[in-house]
Amino acid sequence: MAIAIDAMGGDYAVTVPVEGAVNAVNDFGIDVILVGKQTEIETELKRYNYNESKLHIENCSEVVEMHESPAQALRQKKDSSIRIAVNLHRNKQADAVVTAGHTGASMATAKFVLKSIQGIDRPAIATVMPSLKNPCVILDIGANADCKPEYLLQFALMGDAFSRCLLSVKSPRVALLSNGEEEGKGNLLVKESYDLLKESTLNFIGNVEGKTMFQGLADVIVCDGFVGNITLKVAEGTFDFIKQVLRDEVSKSWVAKLGYLGMRNPFQSLRKRAEYTDWGGAPLLGIQGMVIICHGNSTAHTYRNAIKHAQECVDLGLNEMIAREIMENETLLQTAESKAVVAI
Amino acid sequence: MAIAIDAMGGDYAVTVPVEGAVNAVNDFGIDVILVGKQTEIETELKRYNYNESKLHIENCSEVVEMHESPAQALRQKKDSSIRIAVNLHRNKQADAVVTAGHTGASMATAKFVLKSIQGIDRPAIATVMPSLKNPCVILDIGANADCKPEYLLQFALMGDAFSRCLLSVKSPRVALLSNGEEEGKGNLLVKESYDLLKESTLNFIGNVEGKTMFQGLADVIVCDGFVGNITLKVAEGTFDFIKQVLRDEVSKSWVAKLGYLGMRNPFQSLRKRAEYTDWGGAPLLGIQGMVIICHGNSTAHTYRNAIKHAQECVDLGLNEMIAREIMENETLLQTAESKAVVAI
Repeated sequence: MAIAIDAMGGDYAVTVPVEGAVNAVNDFGIDVILVGKQTEIETELKRYNYNESKLHIENCSEVVEMHESPAQALRQKKDSSIRIAVNLHRNKQADAVVTAGHTGASMATAKFVLKSIQGIDRPAIATVMPSLKNPCVILDIGANADCKPEYLLQFALMGDAFSRCLLSVKSPRVALLSNGEEEGKGNLLVKESYDLLKESTLNFIGNVEGKTMFQGLADVIVCDGFVGNITLKVAEGTFDFIKQVLRDEVSKSWVAKLGYLGMRNPFQSLRKRAEYTDWGGAPLLGIQGMVIICHGNSTAHTYRNAIKHAQECVDLGLNEMIAREIMENETLLQTAESKAVVAI
Repeated sequence: MAIAIDAMGGDYAVTVPVEGAVNAVNDFGIDVILVGKQTEIETELKRYNYNESKLHIENCSEVVEMHESPAQALRQKKDSSIRIAVNLHRNKQADAVVTAGHTGASMATAKFVLKSIQGIDRPAIATVMPSLKNPCVILDIGANADCKPEYLLQFALMGDAFSRCLLSVKSPRVALLSNGEEEGKGNLLVKESYDLLKESTLNFIGNVEGKTMFQGLADVIVCDGFVGNITLKVAEGTFDFIKQVLRDEVSKSWVAKLGYLGMRNPFQSLRKRAEYTDWGGAPLLGIQGMVIICHGNSTAHTYRNAIKHAQECVDLGLNEMIAREIMENETLLQTAESKAVVAI
């Protein structure tokens, strides 16, 4: 078992990916392959002690820059770190890929090189978000801005498999994110998806609203990638807003400063519960392989956890479970697609 | 000048609407008409001192219940409090309406009885949200789940007028809410709307993301009603989540409890900045009239402020400014609509 890491990806390459990889080797005994500019990686590695038999380097000459289009990267940068990492995975030299590089290029490369699981039209990015009770899977958080109902059903099935495999939920409660809880609420996409999910093998519990999604009512929350991106970012933005206002207000008085010291532990617990970094990365579900997408500003700790989760996803047979769930709902998916064709 | 108040609307009717109306009379000298069951209103009014010449009652026999469909309410409840309030407005006996009743029914009634402003396809609900700098107008927050690009342009023009009139912003920075800042990011709706807004008379600054929308980069944020609803509710949900986690953690230790006491003022300031209640209600923009929609759980304070804002919207000529902005962009709007027809 080896995990390929895009050592050139993210805001702090190669320092942070290398540190994360070393930590994964030391803490979990996972074999890693650092894909990137060999000399840079070697220089960085000198700072650490680790089992050298477990850490390999795969040299490459190119890096996908943030301003490049995914299509451009795919066509022109065939020796980029992400492309080589995904190639290693396709050739069975790596069991999974972890990257914090250009998200669009990583997705495009994964989809192009590895192909989708049969029955999946659009791979989706899933992440684990906190709630007052159980952690909850949410998808799609950004791969597909425009969706059809059958895509949302596919996302729901993939999220269900994820929740069963990785969060050990026996019968995940699956919900659609909507602007109201009642059946019949939602935009056209959500309303049509509602009907599909109701007929599926899923434990579909209906809609959840933005306000109640943090209350732990659902184990899997399904939405299109545009809404999913905005949802997560609004939550982050609200968090930052609150932090900033409190910081400004606390700085105005000594009593408040002392109060802040007294509340250090509660604030630390809050930060721990709210941060996704502990989970580490978001898998691109629905491809024949395992690619974990990390935030550009990921820390070494995130990399370390993402590498561990990549291994778990493979070990626990996440993709096999997705394929099984798709098969169990094959007729429903095909009917939905043929309906859509008729509608056009 | 008199404002009609739906005294039967909201979670705490008739107590709270009556108290809010009395406060508006006493604090601002505004004339109000309480529309609802006369005996109930009169009983409630006995608790207060106020200038009786400024507070009137209009009796009605029906109330729209929360489970009813807007269409049903419109067809069958012609003597409901919201219908009578809107009728008073149409007949020029009231200059505006304030309601915390069934949102769908209120919107449907307002649109049906008062009609849209010429050039507006879909009236939209706007609200003022806090940011680290200026308060910011966001719309649509729930009236239209499915939108076309020309609707978003109309929302943008109405938000612009709102910002100029009520928040005294000279050249409002108008932005689209999207999943990325760069041009070309977004779902199909946002991408097409981007092109329209760019060609309009607006001071269009491009896209803002969910994470940065609280930083005060824009004065007007435009989205469809589905995304707008989820955005506001996710912000509320995140706020509640943080409050609950901190509350649980603080209860675990004496040091934290003392700390919390010390931080009372910062928390209070935060609450004040985050709450919309101080602004009071969200106007339904784009109708020939002024209807302010309040949360079902509105307090008397919210009603009082909503009544004041209803008066301001009328006094400051908000609808006249909307009509003017629509006229200035008439050709653009017509081209967009005819393009859409060709596309079908």
